[in-house]
Amino acid sequence: MQIDVIHSAKHIAEYDITGKTVVVFDILRATSTIVTALEQGCRFVLPALTPEEAMDTAQNPPLGVKPSEVLLAGERGGKKIDGFPHGNSPLEYEQAKVKDRVIVLTTSNGTRAIRGSQGAANVFIGSLLNARSTALAALATGLDITLVCAGTRNKYSLEDTLAAGFIALYVMEAPGQGSHREYQLTDAANAAVLLARNYQEKPLEALYASLHGQKLLNLGCRQDLIYCSGLNTLNIVCRYSQGIVKAD
Amino acid sequence: MQIDVIHSAKHIAEYDITGKTVVVFDILRATSTIVTALEQGCRFVLPALTPEEAMDTAQNPPLGVKPSEVLLAGERGGKKIDGFPHGNSPLEYEQAKVKDRVIVLTTSNGTRAIRGSQGAANVFIGSLLNARSTALAALATGLDITLVCAGTRNKYSLEDTLAAGFIALYVMEAPGQGSHREYQLTDAANAAVLLARNYQEKPLEALYASLHGQKLLNLGCRQDLIYCSGLNTLNIVCRYSQGIVKAD
Repeated sequence: MQIDVIHSAKHIAEYDITGKTVVVFDILRATSTIVTALEQGCRFVLPALTPEEAMDTAQNPPLGVKPSEVLLAGERGGKKIDGFPHGNSPLEYEQAKVKDRVIVLTTSNGTRAIRGSQGAANVFIGSLLNARSTALAALATGLDITLVCAGTRNKYSLEDTLAAGFIALYVMEAPGQGSHREYQLTDAANAAVLLARNYQEKPLEALYASLHGQKLLNLGCRQDLIYCSGLNTLNIVCRYSQGIVKAD
Repeated sequence: MQIDVIHSAKHIAEYDITGKTVVVFDILRATSTIVTALEQGCRFVLPALTPEEAMDTAQNPPLGVKPSEVLLAGERGGKKIDGFPHGNSPLEYEQAKVKDRVIVLTTSNGTRAIRGSQGAANVFIGSLLNARSTALAALATGLDITLVCAGTRNKYSLEDTLAAGFIALYVMEAPGQGSHREYQLTDAANAAVLLARNYQEKPLEALYASLHGQKLLNLGCRQDLIYCSGLNTLNIVCRYSQGIVKAD
């Protein structure tokens, strides 16, 4: 089994993800928000590439969904999109608000990374929150694993690569696997594991050190950073398939 | 001063390096070879993109160079190019062979990374061998620093990112700079520094762990890996300008 890391959603097309299991990360904050909303009882999330597509989807939701059941959510540059009732903070999506609802979400990088991964055999939504459960689900597919970081401004991001490193680490540490399974980590995966080991006891420090973490701090979102750094605080597994993200 | 890292020569065009100082790394083995040859008395090195270009340059060298003074060197897939008298191992280039000679060199990734960096204000040739001297030379330019890793097969490579991390680390640690200079490290540079700190006492381990290091081991090049891991064993500074690499 090979484990690889793609550092930016911009570069997905340079890799062959056909027949592989992908985990997507945009932990500040799109994927942390999706995982949280689904854990709080949201039926499913529809990732949209643009605000226009999101508004259109919210007005014309898929069969079985009434427009009144849809929460329209979006962010650009770390801020809620003008005219959108909901933003991209996981702390907005408490149970009373999301239970049995459908969220249409568009964000700067995260939703593009999710949609760009649709050629894979499996696509999971990863974060620090559900890192271990997601690692075990990815491992259970038995396929090569490609960890797709959304990245920041099309570039390497510390926080997404950290989350990717935890998945690789937990896959390698999974009980009963070591003796009869061969792992081949690419150089990018090796370096991500090292990052995870370094920040294992202090993931929040990596979020504070990251460019996007700094930006969110300046926007007054310290609580979001603290919440998103909650390693393995949720056990949910979330899967993207046929345009929607659902809990497994 | 900003310090950034580009993980693959393929992605140079996605960055603006105009007016910046670039350091290029393909430490297994092109840049280690160039640095070594220049330290051993080679007049200059001409990096060529293709074997054809290299042969043509060797037959028609620049003004002041006789074809008999040229060493034609090249590698593809870790092996010497058929018909080329010299390869890409730094251990081939001892003083008796290179003194006052000119080397025309083409390699899989390294020479492309060097040529691709020519829009920068300064281009230095980096390696573990001359990491500290190169860091100080880059710092002395007073410009933003972009550390360009050649990468392996167009992807992130552990050994080049490690070397980039040492440059960033030595720039930050340079005496007298801390108090009156502001460094802004990108996420990629931050992670590279962490890699350097982790392997500071054991750089050879990173070379052994890397995909390309493994390939070279399989080709019987263990001595090359050991030699290339010699952190700060040379004090030379090498600069690429107007098509040639020379010692400063």
